[in-house]
Amino acid sequence: MGKVIVSITMSLDGFVAGANISPEQPLGEGGIRLHDWMFDKKTDADEQVSSETMNNSGAVILGRRMYADAIDGPWEGVTPFKMPAFVLAHKVPAKVADGFTFVTDGMESAFKQAKAVAGDKNIWIGGGANIIQQYIKAGFVEELQVSIAPVLFGVGTRLFDHIGTNHIELANTRNIQTPQATHLRFHIF
Amino acid sequence: MGKVIVSITMSLDGFVAGANISPEQPLGEGGIRLHDWMFDKKTDADEQVSSETMNNSGAVILGRRMYADAIDGPWEGVTPFKMPAFVLAHKVPAKVADGFTFVTDGMESAFKQAKAVAGDKNIWIGGGANIIQQYIKAGFVEELQVSIAPVLFGVGTRLFDHIGTNHIELANTRNIQTPQATHLRFHIF
Repeated sequence: MGKVIVSITMSLDGFVAGANISPEQPLGEGGIRLHDWMFDKKTDADEQVSSETMNNSGAVILGRRMYADAIDGPWEGVTPFKMPAFVLAHKVPAKVADGFTFVTDGMESAFKQAKAVAGDKNIWIGGGANIIQQYIKAGFVEELQVSIAPVLFGVGTRLFDHIGTNHIELANTRNIQTPQATHLRFHIF
Repeated sequence: MGKVIVSITMSLDGFVAGANISPEQPLGEGGIRLHDWMFDKKTDADEQVSSETMNNSGAVILGRRMYADAIDGPWEGVTPFKMPAFVLAHKVPAKVADGFTFVTDGMESAFKQAKAVAGDKNIWIGGGANIIQQYIKAGFVEELQVSIAPVLFGVGTRLFDHIGTNHIELANTRNIQTPQATHLRFHIF
């Protein structure tokens, strides 16, 4: 098995989505701004950061809401992941798109199932924020790839919230600056 | 006049102090961890970032609580600032330490008084967080120097809170990585 990683973009004030998330706007109002570095304003260095997460992961774990909000919207019914995706949920919907497996017996079960297929690649805790928070709080996550977009949102969904009150030590292991992102990588102790 | 700047250290999850701030612990529980890069683990690059804020500022604006919590504690009755310091407060205490001027008629008045003495140097919005938030929200701040300490606090005082709901565009203008801090500088549009 590789590492258990998080790879996500937040505003400088820590938001991974704007206000009022909906199927029409899965990243909330103005939230797409966070991902300028992946699209119109992408540099070679941005491309490297973006593609390595996808290429180095053997499984990804998602929350039900992320799946529900994206599958018929931006994903247009087709998985955007190159690896098996496990969706943490309370129940399995009538129709599940290819590439996704719903897990209804908890985060540890999802992790075990992800580990079983990841081989020597990483297990990517994909999101949304509440899923990432649960796995950080439970001590699963070993590496944080946080891309900071140069913008203050003021309101929205915070990446780091509800992770407990114990301070968690990190070590910065990489820092790549591009015009539209500061790509920071941290090891979690 | 130079620029209106903020220069502050936060945890990766955005906290500038830990929980339970008191005169004994002005940075809250475990908050001193944020400033490792300024003390025991300081490198030459850290020293540059730390000293330039002090050397390039001609006036600093503080909140009453920061003054009250620090003056008889870590500051030991003596101003740590090389420039005049203006303290935003509702009333003037009986005794005010040398180097500090209390301002009771609002943030714009404090800004005017700071501007009057800053010459061609910067006006430094020193903190705490609520003072910084007020000046950001009101559009005064032109440059953010944010040093990110490699730690997650989970709880404490957030730097970016109550700054409104309008997205504020930034441009990254500098990025200095040291073992105990990621020193990011942003221009605020």
